[in-house]
Amino acid sequence: MAQHQELTPSQVLEIMLAKDKFSSWLGLKVIDIAAGYCKLHFTVVYEMLNGFGYVHGGILFSAADSAFEFACNTHGYATVALDVSVSFTRPVRLGEVLTVEAKEEHRGEKTGIYDVRTTNEKGELVSMFKGMAYVTSKQIAL
Amino acid sequence: MAQHQELTPSQVLEIMLAKDKFSSWLGLKVIDIAAGYCKLHFTVVYEMLNGFGYVHGGILFSAADSAFEFACNTHGYATVALDVSVSFTRPVRLGEVLTVEAKEEHRGEKTGIYDVRTTNEKGELVSMFKGMAYVTSKQIAL
Amino acid sequence: MAQHQELTPSQVLEIMLAKDKFSSWLGLKVIDIAAGYCKLHFTVVYEMLNGFGYVHGGILFSAADSAFEFACNTHGYATVALDVSVSFTRPVRLGEVLTVEAKEEHRGEKTGIYDVRTTNEKGELVSMFKGMAYVTSKQIAL
Amino acid sequence: MAQHQELTPSQVLEIMLAKDKFSSWLGLKVIDIAAGYCKLHFTVVYEMLNGFGYVHGGILFSAADSAFEFACNTHGYATVALDVSVSFTRPVRLGEVLTVEAKEEHRGEKTGIYDVRTTNEKGELVSMFKGMAYVTSKQIAL
Repeated sequence: MAQHQELTPSQVLEIMLAKDKFSSWLGLKVIDIAAGYCKLHFTVVYEMLNGFGYVHGGILFSAADSAFEFACNTHGYATVALDVSVSFTRPVRLGEVLTVEAKEEHRGEKTGIYDVRTTNEKGELVSMFKGMAYVTSKQIAL
Repeated sequence: MAQHQELTPSQVLEIMLAKDKFSSWLGLKVIDIAAGYCKLHFTVVYEMLNGFGYVHGGILFSAADSAFEFACNTHGYATVALDVSVSFTRPVRLGEVLTVEAKEEHRGEKTGIYDVRTTNEKGELVSMFKGMAYVTSKQIAL
Repeated sequence: MAQHQELTPSQVLEIMLAKDKFSSWLGLKVIDIAAGYCKLHFTVVYEMLNGFGYVHGGILFSAADSAFEFACNTHGYATVALDVSVSFTRPVRLGEVLTVEAKEEHRGEKTGIYDVRTTNEKGELVSMFKGMAYVTSKQIAL
Repeated sequence: MAQHQELTPSQVLEIMLAKDKFSSWLGLKVIDIAAGYCKLHFTVVYEMLNGFGYVHGGILFSAADSAFEFACNTHGYATVALDVSVSFTRPVRLGEVLTVEAKEEHRGEKTGIYDVRTTNEKGELVSMFKGMAYVTSKQIAL
């Protein structure tokens, strides 16, 4: 009866986090998860800096990409990123705590669109990420 | 006469690499640098995997973003990413060696556009990245 | 004292609409304009269809791009699109009335980011557009 | 035996052009078509101008989007745009003749990626477009 088993968003997240080595490295702390939704935060550490001494754009992308992947997999079907666009709005420094919020804006049979925003402690927008995901027919299982 | 001093692309790269902690963590090896151009490679290690056991999209983005930043700063003016779009075409596994090539497609007074492609050892396209950079008036200095 | 003259968002819109031949062709009706904001609607006519008999993606982009340009110029400085990403979520047919809403998500000294969403009469998302604008120092004048 | 019938790229183009009302309005002239490839040109007319008197960004997008759609449908399966990113590099004026070239960079089972560049008569890049297409299982038929 494997096909009737339905995982909750929290169970899917737990399965993914257990294997997601890079999200561990980033120190991501998920603070809210629900169908099509994920909110997390993390702190900018020394290894995350770029050649100008600010946070590397890849770190901002990566944290948003993880929130996106967690949100889009909550429905229980393996879902992968196809295409992402990200805009950067202000520099981020060592020690800042960033909050990332991913929201589902559309969910079709085969694709989904997610809006992911990263803000600093003052609530200012640091990056804005729009992701298109492809929904496979493979169920995520325990 | 500081304003007449002109750094070569290799000198700019050296300055940036010395501070770029995250590119070090990624293990990026720059194999070619020239005005508006950068080619590098890196190997996918265990800490780079996502919840499905493939390379995390953030890693692919980050390596491309570094190549982009190295290429767009070769002209000697501090240049930062404004907006990036990335498409993912095939999964990448632990141990694969990826090559990233960044090419300048346009360089205006204030902005530049870069096409960055990541390929696997078979030469297959793994991700395609288009980045818009903003050129500041601040010269990069030793 | 030309530099002290400040146009309202409605005045800027009026100046732009008077010259914007393609927005006229599209039949765009602006129903709300404010600082960093624009809402408009239009009807899909026969000349807007593509090779599959649905609305051409270029039409969806164009209406969103106009709303984006109207919103980002409301501050009175000539502002132009640098980079846009658009996602398409469902087909649109002849005769449908679409609503386009552009919101400013960030406004820096030199750049601004706008989120533009197009919905059909059922309120369903048809396309999602994220635009990065470059703010020039040229004031818009009567 | 309808399923064995295979259309050439030119035949697919002919079928699409016959219905594509907006590409007709744009005055697009296809000058080369092949598997995964399309090259076309068009002239900027008065109705294509925006509020600043330059070509409307939607026109640049639309011509590139048509070239993209023509290129991605050449394989004979109905293929639609999912996600597009476009960068604008220089203004275009009334009367300019633009050339648009769409190339397939990746073709998977379900998706394809296309690089579409628009240049002016001097060969200067005017816009750069990266499109992700979704390949349906529906064959295009005469």
